[in-house]
Amino acid sequence: MSNCLIAQSGGPTTVINASLSGAIATALESTDIEIIYGAINGIQGVLNENLINLTSIFLNNKDYLETLKTTPSMFLGSCRYRLSHYQENEDEYIRIFDLLQKLDIRYFFYIGGNDSMDTVLKLYEYAQLKNIDINIIGIPKTIDNDLYGTDHTPGFGSAAKYVATTMLEIAHDAYIYDVESVTIVEIMGRNAGWLTAASALSRNEYNPSPDLIYLPEVTFSISTFLDDVRTVLKNKKNVIIAVSEGIRSANENYIAASEALATDTFGHARLKGTAKTLGHIIERTLKCKVRSIELNVLQRSAMHIASLTDINEAFSIGEQAVKYALDGISGEMMTIIRYQNDPYEHKIFHSDIKEIANREKQIPREWINDKGNDITQELVDYIRPLIIGEPSIGYKNGVPIYIDIRHLINGFGN
Amino acid sequence: MSNCLIAQSGGPTTVINASLSGAIATALESTDIEIIYGAINGIQGVLNENLINLTSIFLNNKDYLETLKTTPSMFLGSCRYRLSHYQENEDEYIRIFDLLQKLDIRYFFYIGGNDSMDTVLKLYEYAQLKNIDINIIGIPKTIDNDLYGTDHTPGFGSAAKYVATTMLEIAHDAYIYDVESVTIVEIMGRNAGWLTAASALSRNEYNPSPDLIYLPEVTFSISTFLDDVRTVLKNKKNVIIAVSEGIRSANENYIAASEALATDTFGHARLKGTAKTLGHIIERTLKCKVRSIELNVLQRSAMHIASLTDINEAFSIGEQAVKYALDGISGEMMTIIRYQNDPYEHKIFHSDIKEIANREKQIPREWINDKGNDITQELVDYIRPLIIGEPSIGYKNGVPIYIDIRHLINGFGN
Repeated sequence: MSNCLIAQSGGPTTVINASLSGAIATALESTDIEIIYGAINGIQGVLNENLINLTSIFLNNKDYLETLKTTPSMFLGSCRYRLSHYQENEDEYIRIFDLLQKLDIRYFFYIGGNDSMDTVLKLYEYAQLKNIDINIIGIPKTIDNDLYGTDHTPGFGSAAKYVATTMLEIAHDAYIYDVESVTIVEIMGRNAGWLTAASALSRNEYNPSPDLIYLPEVTFSISTFLDDVRTVLKNKKNVIIAVSEGIRSANENYIAASEALATDTFGHARLKGTAKTLGHIIERTLKCKVRSIELNVLQRSAMHIASLTDINEAFSIGEQAVKYALDGISGEMMTIIRYQNDPYEHKIFHSDIKEIANREKQIPREWINDKGNDITQELVDYIRPLIIGEPSIGYKNGVPIYIDIRHLINGFGN
Repeated sequence: MSNCLIAQSGGPTTVINASLSGAIATALESTDIEIIYGAINGIQGVLNENLINLTSIFLNNKDYLETLKTTPSMFLGSCRYRLSHYQENEDEYIRIFDLLQKLDIRYFFYIGGNDSMDTVLKLYEYAQLKNIDINIIGIPKTIDNDLYGTDHTPGFGSAAKYVATTMLEIAHDAYIYDVESVTIVEIMGRNAGWLTAASALSRNEYNPSPDLIYLPEVTFSISTFLDDVRTVLKNKKNVIIAVSEGIRSANENYIAASEALATDTFGHARLKGTAKTLGHIIERTLKCKVRSIELNVLQRSAMHIASLTDINEAFSIGEQAVKYALDGISGEMMTIIRYQNDPYEHKIFHSDIKEIANREKQIPREWINDKGNDITQELVDYIRPLIIGEPSIGYKNGVPIYIDIRHLINGFGN
């Protein structure tokens, strides 16, 4: 019997805790694992020796695991800490592995995105070099869907469902007035437009919007944008546009940074947003009513409209990660392989972390239309199965029932 | 047998169509009503003779009424058109009542907020003056909950549930990093803070946030605000603040005044950026991480997280409006009378439109704490029953099933 450690890192998604729940559930059942430790705030928690005993929390409270499965964000807290290479700062590695060995930790699971997979890779390589007997597995998560080696990432499907549902509700909101209007919705995604593309899934028998979709994969031109909007306005009064926060002009400048906006009454420049910047340009140029909407953190935290498919996959990936680690797998990230879209068939596997860490997978150009202002049916068909299904969430006093570590461990954190 | 007319006006809520559904359902069953007309885009649709026959749409499609009940925004479209007083422009009144008489319309239902109730009052007074035999009833709706004469307004409960749920999810998102941060969430409400107050309903066993709540009912001081934030930061790292878009300083300037655009047709200033403005001030003064979030139109359109209590009340109010009109009631707005909070008991009644139109009900000062940065338990207890219950929404291809007039009537609108 030895022990295992789980940590979470990077930005939140709605289903990171589903992966945690799956990993804990499987580890609790394993006769090879005695204590399940959780590091508070990712690898920082390991460096600070800030660990908690998850076995003692969950062993006799299996219903907590169910609630954890449908609790958004990150139960163990997060960090954005980048490990130096061991040749630059071996000290950190010594501290980390001393603690792991002291606590007899033989299995380490790190749930995160690109940057977190860099941590997994570095720890794995150091353990190899020093012949330390520990199996290290990366568990993917990101709403951005930009990880290589996997068909898609847990977290994306729920964010995509939020975006599609929200865009449909925004369309219902926008269509009611009989005046020309442009609604610009800004969606997360610095370098990859997967989540912005999901806005197209709001289209149905009566809703043709979004009328235009702009992704970071395509160079953005303000004059082409204005032409596009003018063209749509010829045929319909209420134009709805989905735009990735990360769109850039030909000189690689973010559009959000391209316009100096007015200073406010306190004498300093307003925060620049992509949607607000474009909204100002439309207002000034086309003189029509404009509304700029930033979907903001709800994209990654709105468990109340998460995808059941996504939750279940995230949970399974957590389960499988523990099983593979017990089987001796290390230096790998859990992945999803898709066999077909309809009916959706997939399996969970794993892939070499070296091929995944520090890379970003963008939308293939052939899944974007020629004009660069919409996506193709292939991309819709790729996203569709990932947003299917609604979880059954408990409500108390009218708000969802979630679980929080501060509630379970007195005095932690805030 | 005579006919009736229904129209919708003002800003959207999630449950305006529930009232429409209730009114149509009851009118379809009445032996006194032959044709149910709907005016497209509120009173403008009457002025433009742009009416549709709702009986022909819904009579043989009762399932449409069920979907309409859980479709957000406004099926018939809206307007923000202010009728002149008849002494200034009797022409409009003549056109309106000529059409109503030509179509044998004996019952007119107008679903809207304060401004729409002004339209109801004017039409009612003109009909009285000219002895026109028509019963005119106002059906309230507004997420702002600022109508007099009623305990609360349909639309408020769903918006409040959205705000409470969203604030809880934002808290889960904000608490994960071990660094000082301030999250400012801007909530709709220009002169009344009811909806911003609903943020307090996100508090539970583990979530003390929002830590501060600022309402338009209390004069806002930037220096007191900064003191408040500093005080909270002494005890917790992640401060979450709910702020009404309409907060004003002692000189009556909106905090977001620098962002104010042109005034709308009712003379209201169009605001932008209260949270962003305060975020800048915090960033500059306290030098910590700041996130500004505008909940934006989702507050009034997110049927996927609407309150079942609200939907059912809105539907009943639509039903009752038709019954009262058939009983001879006119010049009244439908109202809700509350008997007690827990268990929640209420009844639907009606009240003189003269006492309601063009007034705004604010939060009583005694329901706000002395410091003016939080609300009292009485206000929590008042809001709580209104956010209880979740509707059963159908999903198709992963997004909610709603109904749209453009889908039913070929060639309408967009």
